[in-house]
Amino acid sequence: MRKHILFLSCAVLAIPALSAVAEEPTTEPEIKTLLEDAQKHFRPLPAVPAARSERVELGRRLFFEPRVSADGKVSCAHCHQPALYGADGLAKSKGVFGRANARNAPTVFNAALQFKQHWRGDRESLEDQAQQSLLGPASFGNPDYAAAMAKLAAIAGYRDLFAKAFPGENNPITVENWANAIGAFERSLLTPSKFDAFLTGNANALAAAERTGLRKFMDVGCVECHSGAGVGGETFEKFGVIEDYWKETGGAEPDKGRFDVTKQDADLYVFKVSSLRNVAKTAPYFHDGSVASLPRAVQIMGKAQLGTDLADQDVDAIVAFLGSLTGPVPANFSAPALPEAQGQ
Amino acid sequence: MRKHILFLSCAVLAIPALSAVAEEPTTEPEIKTLLEDAQKHFRPLPAVPAARSERVELGRRLFFEPRVSADGKVSCAHCHQPALYGADGLAKSKGVFGRANARNAPTVFNAALQFKQHWRGDRESLEDQAQQSLLGPASFGNPDYAAAMAKLAAIAGYRDLFAKAFPGENNPITVENWANAIGAFERSLLTPSKFDAFLTGNANALAAAERTGLRKFMDVGCVECHSGAGVGGETFEKFGVIEDYWKETGGAEPDKGRFDVTKQDADLYVFKVSSLRNVAKTAPYFHDGSVASLPRAVQIMGKAQLGTDLADQDVDAIVAFLGSLTGPVPANFSAPALPEAQGQ
Repeated sequence: MRKHILFLSCAVLAIPALSAVAEEPTTEPEIKTLLEDAQKHFRPLPAVPAARSERVELGRRLFFEPRVSADGKVSCAHCHQPALYGADGLAKSKGVFGRANARNAPTVFNAALQFKQHWRGDRESLEDQAQQSLLGPASFGNPDYAAAMAKLAAIAGYRDLFAKAFPGENNPITVENWANAIGAFERSLLTPSKFDAFLTGNANALAAAERTGLRKFMDVGCVECHSGAGVGGETFEKFGVIEDYWKETGGAEPDKGRFDVTKQDADLYVFKVSSLRNVAKTAPYFHDGSVASLPRAVQIMGKAQLGTDLADQDVDAIVAFLGSLTGPVPANFSAPALPEAQGQ
Repeated sequence: MRKHILFLSCAVLAIPALSAVAEEPTTEPEIKTLLEDAQKHFRPLPAVPAARSERVELGRRLFFEPRVSADGKVSCAHCHQPALYGADGLAKSKGVFGRANARNAPTVFNAALQFKQHWRGDRESLEDQAQQSLLGPASFGNPDYAAAMAKLAAIAGYRDLFAKAFPGENNPITVENWANAIGAFERSLLTPSKFDAFLTGNANALAAAERTGLRKFMDVGCVECHSGAGVGGETFEKFGVIEDYWKETGGAEPDKGRFDVTKQDADLYVFKVSSLRNVAKTAPYFHDGSVASLPRAVQIMGKAQLGTDLADQDVDAIVAFLGSLTGPVPANFSAPALPEAQGQ
């Protein structure tokens, strides 16, 4: 059975429970039940190792390195900016020479938790994404990997950094090691929030409004897809289970999603479920960035995915809960001084 | 008398002293003399106030804010990157839609010390530069200031930040305050180095090779222009006093420099003297970024400005001295989390 069919049935099952759970969990037993229910659906973020390896530190440099791109201006950080919570605030991102990407740039924070990368899941891992982006015409825009690696190898300081990060290799400046180092860095970009404190047993970590929103989020059916450590990012689903998504989002030409990758009818309008970690900080929303407001995005999801017209107070409660998924920007997500090119 | 004529005569006066000072200052009296001579020409950087005002903190946010640009990708940090010592590593910088600038982007570090901004001095101050960049077709590319400020005002979080930074103003989100806040932030971006420790009396702060280079730098005549706290940045000079600069740099079409601003013959090929603070970290060199190697840039300056063929060991010594002008990246030159746009 296709996952989005399964999802539909779950959502439909969830709807009858709606009217029974409109109230705020306030008593101690209610909060205890809320915590136990949440623990069935969600996992706290794994711990990030405190030590930063040579590989992570190299990856941090490469992440902020624009000189490897076709126009010398695009680093990973171009679309995954520290100042914008690892995203870029645009509906659709722009790469070398200002070329537009087909879809919105998601935050790189907690991306390591996702089962695949990119909206259509056509990047298998962080490493696959980092590698292929070197050639993407609207990403780094290099003609081939050799050209990209030649640019890195021409910066003397990288020789030592790659050698230390990949000891024992004769020529460590390879596209695979580019990908490995960036992947290692990105795996360190986790953002634990007060929701993790709650999940690990501190029932008071969430404020009353956030608890109400969490209850609603689970009871209304959002949790059927947005679950796990990433609160999403673990499955594919059809966007528009109940009705065509573009009628709600107001986006232009419908994006066929994973269908364009697999050419299978069952993948029409199927996308990777977004992780909702830090969602309050990473507008605009959806694969096409068509919706700027988080409350509006929640309403649309209710309608298009669950066939529910969420009341304003329920939207507000869910938005309050989503705010509890915001963690601080990781301390090591800042630009390091890059090796200088001069003097050769 | 034009400054560059004065400079020429100083340079010529300095040349005869050359042969007398080829040796390394090693004895205590020699080092003491070196320090005293240096103190006549250079000043240590002023202290940066430890407290960060609301205005500086707002300026830090605005510096990293791309949403104010025509394509949503260009912030001040686009051309003044933390990872590249406040510059961008390109020969000529690129702004919105990948449009090329006419000249190289200098580092923003210590820019506050310069008497004017931009290579041709056609920006009077940091604030003037910050303001005009909003409209520059190859900078932020806005049609007018109102359009730029409307983008800022649409981001709810800025209302409070501007109100706190400019208390008592009815509508503080103005282009003047954009400029004031960014100027305040940039004034905090000073990079004291071991040269400052030397200048303030620690004669041992410079290594032997650096002292030799400093002696050479002063005796050969570089110091006639590259002086003061910025080791440059205080005057205009002709590039190519002795011979046409483009014959040495290999740059294409000669840039007429300040002549194109003032239309005065005396300003032909005149540029602002570059500050040499952090020069080892900010290749490529010159207004057109035509030279990638610092030793080569030093050779060219010797030839084009002083009529001197510097020996390789003298070039190496000067490059060693210039390395002592590298300070750490300022701690507050990192991207802050920006106010989110969503929720309105």
